[in-house]
Amino acid sequence: MSARYDFASDNTAPAAPEAMQALLDANQGYASGYGTDAVTARAADLVRGLLDVDAEVRFVASGTAANAISVAALARPFEAVLAHEHAHICTDETGAPGFFGQGVGLIRLPGASGRIDPTALEAALAQPDVSYRQPAAALSLTTATEYGTVYSAEQLARLIAPVKARGHGVHLDGARVANAAAAGFDLTQLAGLGVDLFVLGGAKAGMPPTEALVILDKALARRIDPRLKQAGQLPSKGRFYAAPFVGMLQDGALLRHAAHANAMAAKLAAAMPFKVLHPVEANAVFVEMDDATLARLHAAGWFVYRFLDGSVRFVCSWATTEAAVEEVAEALKGLA
Amino acid sequence: MSARYDFASDNTAPAAPEAMQALLDANQGYASGYGTDAVTARAADLVRGLLDVDAEVRFVASGTAANAISVAALARPFEAVLAHEHAHICTDETGAPGFFGQGVGLIRLPGASGRIDPTALEAALAQPDVSYRQPAAALSLTTATEYGTVYSAEQLARLIAPVKARGHGVHLDGARVANAAAAGFDLTQLAGLGVDLFVLGGAKAGMPPTEALVILDKALARRIDPRLKQAGQLPSKGRFYAAPFVGMLQDGALLRHAAHANAMAAKLAAAMPFKVLHPVEANAVFVEMDDATLARLHAAGWFVYRFLDGSVRFVCSWATTEAAVEEVAEALKGLA
Amino acid sequence: MSARYDFASDNTAPAAPEAMQALLDANQGYASGYGTDAVTARAADLVRGLLDVDAEVRFVASGTAANAISVAALARPFEAVLAHEHAHICTDETGAPGFFGQGVGLIRLPGASGRIDPTALEAALAQPDVSYRQPAAALSLTTATEYGTVYSAEQLARLIAPVKARGHGVHLDGARVANAAAAGFDLTQLAGLGVDLFVLGGAKAGMPPTEALVILDKALARRIDPRLKQAGQLPSKGRFYAAPFVGMLQDGALLRHAAHANAMAAKLAAAMPFKVLHPVEANAVFVEMDDATLARLHAAGWFVYRFLDGSVRFVCSWATTEAAVEEVAEALKGLA
Amino acid sequence: MSARYDFASDNTAPAAPEAMQALLDANQGYASGYGTDAVTARAADLVRGLLDVDAEVRFVASGTAANAISVAALARPFEAVLAHEHAHICTDETGAPGFFGQGVGLIRLPGASGRIDPTALEAALAQPDVSYRQPAAALSLTTATEYGTVYSAEQLARLIAPVKARGHGVHLDGARVANAAAAGFDLTQLAGLGVDLFVLGGAKAGMPPTEALVILDKALARRIDPRLKQAGQLPSKGRFYAAPFVGMLQDGALLRHAAHANAMAAKLAAAMPFKVLHPVEANAVFVEMDDATLARLHAAGWFVYRFLDGSVRFVCSWATTEAAVEEVAEALKGLA
Repeated sequence: MSARYDFASDNTAPAAPEAMQALLDANQGYASGYGTDAVTARAADLVRGLLDVDAEVRFVASGTAANAISVAALARPFEAVLAHEHAHICTDETGAPGFFGQGVGLIRLPGASGRIDPTALEAALAQPDVSYRQPAAALSLTTATEYGTVYSAEQLARLIAPVKARGHGVHLDGARVANAAAAGFDLTQLAGLGVDLFVLGGAKAGMPPTEALVILDKALARRIDPRLKQAGQLPSKGRFYAAPFVGMLQDGALLRHAAHANAMAAKLAAAMPFKVLHPVEANAVFVEMDDATLARLHAAGWFVYRFLDGSVRFVCSWATTEAAVEEVAEALKGLA
Repeated sequence: MSARYDFASDNTAPAAPEAMQALLDANQGYASGYGTDAVTARAADLVRGLLDVDAEVRFVASGTAANAISVAALARPFEAVLAHEHAHICTDETGAPGFFGQGVGLIRLPGASGRIDPTALEAALAQPDVSYRQPAAALSLTTATEYGTVYSAEQLARLIAPVKARGHGVHLDGARVANAAAAGFDLTQLAGLGVDLFVLGGAKAGMPPTEALVILDKALARRIDPRLKQAGQLPSKGRFYAAPFVGMLQDGALLRHAAHANAMAAKLAAAMPFKVLHPVEANAVFVEMDDATLARLHAAGWFVYRFLDGSVRFVCSWATTEAAVEEVAEALKGLA
Repeated sequence: MSARYDFASDNTAPAAPEAMQALLDANQGYASGYGTDAVTARAADLVRGLLDVDAEVRFVASGTAANAISVAALARPFEAVLAHEHAHICTDETGAPGFFGQGVGLIRLPGASGRIDPTALEAALAQPDVSYRQPAAALSLTTATEYGTVYSAEQLARLIAPVKARGHGVHLDGARVANAAAAGFDLTQLAGLGVDLFVLGGAKAGMPPTEALVILDKALARRIDPRLKQAGQLPSKGRFYAAPFVGMLQDGALLRHAAHANAMAAKLAAAMPFKVLHPVEANAVFVEMDDATLARLHAAGWFVYRFLDGSVRFVCSWATTEAAVEEVAEALKGLA
Repeated sequence: MSARYDFASDNTAPAAPEAMQALLDANQGYASGYGTDAVTARAADLVRGLLDVDAEVRFVASGTAANAISVAALARPFEAVLAHEHAHICTDETGAPGFFGQGVGLIRLPGASGRIDPTALEAALAQPDVSYRQPAAALSLTTATEYGTVYSAEQLARLIAPVKARGHGVHLDGARVANAAAAGFDLTQLAGLGVDLFVLGGAKAGMPPTEALVILDKALARRIDPRLKQAGQLPSKGRFYAAPFVGMLQDGALLRHAAHANAMAAKLAAAMPFKVLHPVEANAVFVEMDDATLARLHAAGWFVYRFLDGSVRFVCSWATTEAAVEEVAEALKGLA
């Protein structure tokens, strides 16, 4: 029996048909390079429409790079970015912010279920500038969070306000923002909330590898093309990174698929025989499970990860079927 | 009339059907992430077979990044890499080697038609180590070169021998190595010649964005996955970068398409009414053309670039048709 | 009343007369640059004699830079260095390791009174290499530690052994190693213990700004001069950084002064009316003191720092007088 | 016979008595660290007075670092700095700008006798921004230049105007600005000319190692202390880097010594039997000399360097005696 990766992550799923069809459609005739083509222009328009913003948009290959480039754009090497201690940039990107940002610091903040604790944020911001410590220059947020929760607009506003009051920047890692949107977060609020750089996730939302870097603070768009090119993130064949967004945005597939993923997570949570440890607000379910049980689950062919807080994570995607949820729930019941 | 990019570059063409079909074929079911999937394993085997080597192979999104990571792997910030003064890493990648390599130097060498002059190389290698200058630590080669010429194995050996004699490393930028191979260069000689890191180009060879990083010196493969992940070049959905290589290698499409591109360049050179400035050995034709004429060519709808040596470049690809060659030749005759 | 910095740090003291006299002596006639002069050669010999090693020695301006360059020499950007969570490189150098090492990671380890807990070290070393995390490549030690304690040779050996067993490197920050030596640590054991890069502190030991970088693993000395020059740490007027070491080593002043500083700390500890929180093994005393009391001490003119573990630190130096110890002890008694 | 370094460079001379005395004077009692002491405050006032500016001033150990930090402050990694092709930052600092600036580019400009050709500068500024090239973000100037010439204020203004018109920054490497001032350049014009970051050289002017970083554009002073600390250039014992400036500025020794050095160069030029290749406007004389003759000069004990333009350089300093000039002139006459 080969391992099943249905619930291991949302990047183990195949790409959605709308994205793949758009890729095929875009693969016609010649196109100018480095994001100057018509497909890229169309995709950027669709992203702007989705967010109701006048922003610069670029399509890049890597979410890790997009986040790290954002951090490096908002903070210099002798400064630091505030982030949840379990944010992807802190724990899962091999120190990419420090690499792209030449040692830029990360100030790790606590907070329940992946949301930053506003009090901890304010305490960090209140730290005096001293020469021997990298002072905060920006805030990095993630929604849906690493623990499958979704910030409300009010929660985001409360975190962003003191940051902006100090003139600092704000980055939003939206690898799973489609799931947040499907859970009720209004994407057209991003600009008003004060987000400066936003990574609109493609890969985890059901696309082939692609992410949209949305530059809401246009001052940060200055020389963005050489910045991206130098960092290996200005693709010569830009249409291949733009087309999936066309396919997923032109008729609403992005949010439709995200809503399905969320629904599958809710279904799994409802059937889950193990204790659920975080609110199930998007497309993931985190449960309490000991090592022996996890080993038996792996042995039964279901691959899932133990997470940083000790919980075991199940992720649903656009491709998750009701049958698969029932199947894994059945397997879990046998282990509980 | 919209501009035509048929001859502007080999990355303006669409992806070849074999590559696209493989992408569709790979997009089935769930797959483990970060290059641990079966498609990636198969593609790596095919690359090893093509080169007849036992090497580590990774599939990455960006040739710029693959080259820059290679440079950073072979030379430390206080060292330098020897390269042709018009090599892509020197002139077209926005200083990416210095970014990925934290200021690693480039020692720019002259040489006719894109090939490094061996005498200049030896003179550079003979420079004494002094504290105030970045000493050479590696050689970066490109074939087919930026000027559409192809090194013979003897020429490569002559350049590599003195470099290896000093214990330095060798990188080969193979963005157009398929064209070199179609022109007679034997890819199975790479390992024997002493190349340590080899970028086997996908994008310019007719694939969607993907490049294979071939690590011939296995010592350099140590911790290559965190290295790539940190640099934004370890794709979570690895199969999308591996599949095109499966499609292009499993039945010889890569070299077949490259041979076609080369043949189209030969046909264009034969019909060219302007003076051809470099030997046409691969898929590009460089001609003498004044600004006024180039402007009229652009006005006629044919977009091509003036190059660093002052020549105007026409590039053919797998997708170049005989009809297009005849059409542009006709247009050129009207301008000559 | 102006503030008194006698106990604020060991870098608030003036330079010792032996160091200053050597500076004056060295300032005669012309000398070749960049560390090729006779004073530098003599100082390097004296350092080698002190440690009884055959090592390369360089004299640099900054301990922060010396530590960061050491870290960057032992670990690549996608790797990490293990260190005590309160080590100077982790908490007091503004992220310099990440700056000099382009994002190189720090794995922060716990341990009582500044000494790394061997169990925590072993657990960190046992972590599997995964692509999304910077794996350990080296250990950074400090003695005397940030909390004024001194590792025994056995304690160092226990920490170094598992690191060396994995082929990793070892850095020793010896900003206060003179105090450790005066407390009994045998400096001639460093090489045998497996230290690869050692920073022999000058500034805190009573010299004008200078530190000796001792390269015990000679492979790391390859191209060390361009490495230091690029990093701004190969002084053109090398004799000014070497001379203080001549003055302090030629007749044993270094250890004699360190022994005095340690004795003054012992005297202060004996007279201390506040609870002493760490063993007083070198030249610092850490005590329990609430904010109000600290404010009153400051108001009384005695400047000292609250430290990372919440304690308040008093540091003695070569210049600390018995009278000053008695004076501050008196002031403290008035506050207790 | 030991080699004589009298004319090898201006950093082979000992430090001037005024600087050394100030060092001794400053070495009294305790002082707060990291540039917060009274000596540093006084030195900064004296620098501001010398330049008649309201600027932030920091004292650092390394001119290489000061220049590289300036470059990194004015240009991001994906940008470039314009400089004379033989400027110290381009040829003598081991790629330090790229190291401190994470790959920041250098655009090398020609110009006779070390002065940048304004036409070449304007042509470089006129280059279009393209994604694959690092665009200019700043200008780096040097006076006295590497070839011992001195820009007039008009010449500086002509170079700075088009740079400022584009909103770019200006750095001035003043390693030998004292010699320029002694040759007639009015230091109080710097701010009006539009210089943003200025390195006022100490070492070559006769001080122990120290350089003053003068931050004329105060926006660049934001978080300058953590920036310097991270780069290893915020000395804990700041008074040792500030004191020499006190000694050299409080009674005009800096310019007096520089005038002497210039006079000695003029005297040497007048007596020089070899062809002088650059105008002797400051403290250096460049002559035409073949390899055999240079070897004989070295054999005669006089060490001097062959320079990048093929000339042989003789540098005078505050310490150069009339007798030494006569002695070397005699030796040269024997070789001519």
